[in-house]
Amino acid sequence: MLNLLNQHRTIRKYTEQVIAPELLDELLTTAFRASNTGNMQAYSVVVTTDPDIKQQLSPAHFNQPMIKQAPVVLTFCADYNLFSKWCEQRQAEPGYDNFQSFMATAIDTLLAAQTFCIAAESVGLGICYLGTTTYNAQEIIEALKLPKLVVPVTTITLGYPADIPEQTDRLPLEAIVHRETYKNFTPTDIDRIYAEKESSDFYKQFVAENKKETLPQVFTDVRYTKKNNEFFSEKFLEALKMQGFLK
Amino acid sequence: MLNLLNQHRTIRKYTEQVIAPELLDELLTTAFRASNTGNMQAYSVVVTTDPDIKQQLSPAHFNQPMIKQAPVVLTFCADYNLFSKWCEQRQAEPGYDNFQSFMATAIDTLLAAQTFCIAAESVGLGICYLGTTTYNAQEIIEALKLPKLVVPVTTITLGYPADIPEQTDRLPLEAIVHRETYKNFTPTDIDRIYAEKESSDFYKQFVAENKKETLPQVFTDVRYTKKNNEFFSEKFLEALKMQGFLK
Repeated sequence: MLNLLNQHRTIRKYTEQVIAPELLDELLTTAFRASNTGNMQAYSVVVTTDPDIKQQLSPAHFNQPMIKQAPVVLTFCADYNLFSKWCEQRQAEPGYDNFQSFMATAIDTLLAAQTFCIAAESVGLGICYLGTTTYNAQEIIEALKLPKLVVPVTTITLGYPADIPEQTDRLPLEAIVHRETYKNFTPTDIDRIYAEKESSDFYKQFVAENKKETLPQVFTDVRYTKKNNEFFSEKFLEALKMQGFLK
Repeated sequence: MLNLLNQHRTIRKYTEQVIAPELLDELLTTAFRASNTGNMQAYSVVVTTDPDIKQQLSPAHFNQPMIKQAPVVLTFCADYNLFSKWCEQRQAEPGYDNFQSFMATAIDTLLAAQTFCIAAESVGLGICYLGTTTYNAQEIIEALKLPKLVVPVTTITLGYPADIPEQTDRLPLEAIVHRETYKNFTPTDIDRIYAEKESSDFYKQFVAENKKETLPQVFTDVRYTKKNNEFFSEKFLEALKMQGFLK
């Protein structure tokens, strides 16, 4: 089992092989065994296979080819719609139109999503997470007809792997794990933590291709710029307001 | 593997058995193989075993006994501190002090947390998620000395199970899974979806013990009230501002 988790790769190219609907339902059933707040199960998953609807989703994901190429696209949503409707139908006044409720259900949504991915990988499927979901939530809400109190949190493309890419590197444990309390980093710590990454041929080429001097500059100036992050922050906050999770 | 995931239970009581530090590090290493945005690994885990520090964390988690009883408490944090420091040390201007960056790293944090939990369960350990983390983030920030751009997202208590409780129920798939696009629910759908839950002896007793008439009223009036949700919404938004993720 640890071996399966340790072998994880993001799969962006899929074969033509169809995923059996019974298998997909079995994996979803397994995903919903994950822990969730108060057993409210305040999440939903929109399973999209129809080429027309994938086409409508595609621009929200900046036309990344996985959306159209993957046999199945799963949009995992924080969802207090069903639970609130149940409350109203049973003489209870729901109070889940707020940011804390969004956070709680977003957490539950992601635990279910990751459990789904691990379940899928255990039967030979491959997955890719799309971070564009929180960039263009409004467009996804429109394409999938999501009602109030439903916000997409992440999207997974799913299929049988057409090839198995190399594994990406990871930082040493000392970069991530703090013992007892948080120990902040000295400049020497930072040099040591990033030394292996910065000295690798892969990243040297990556920096050169992006015409930058240092690896972090590729992130700040090209891939995840302050300007874009701020633009998409406003956009996602607006989506939370539009769906009723934020005043 | 599906069997392991399908057998998941939240474990709130632990034996005295110590967790070998090498095993814990192996599980953490496995957790960080999970997918993450741009391979930035913008998260951290504070591993707390010291009784004094657990004591300081305890009120933030409403003194739930797992914090003191579990041999290990893991606080999973969205963390752009290290990455931003690296940027600054390499002539790059970080732009991760915004809500979109928080969401992206919170998502990555939760995928790592759930992978950790599954890895832990695969070697016979038991876990409990504490939703109180986003209620009292400020107090946790203080107890664990978290710097700016670090926000706790979830907490896991970990240990060898002292007993294996019954599994909790789950809603039928039709409550969660939507085909192609979102299909909203009719009153008849809602009655059908919740019928099994509402007719179970367990929940009938739960409603009676809480002196309520319907099951949703236990949630809205006792467990997750509008008043508390709104109070903790403001508190978490304040923590995001304090740590620099929100203007």
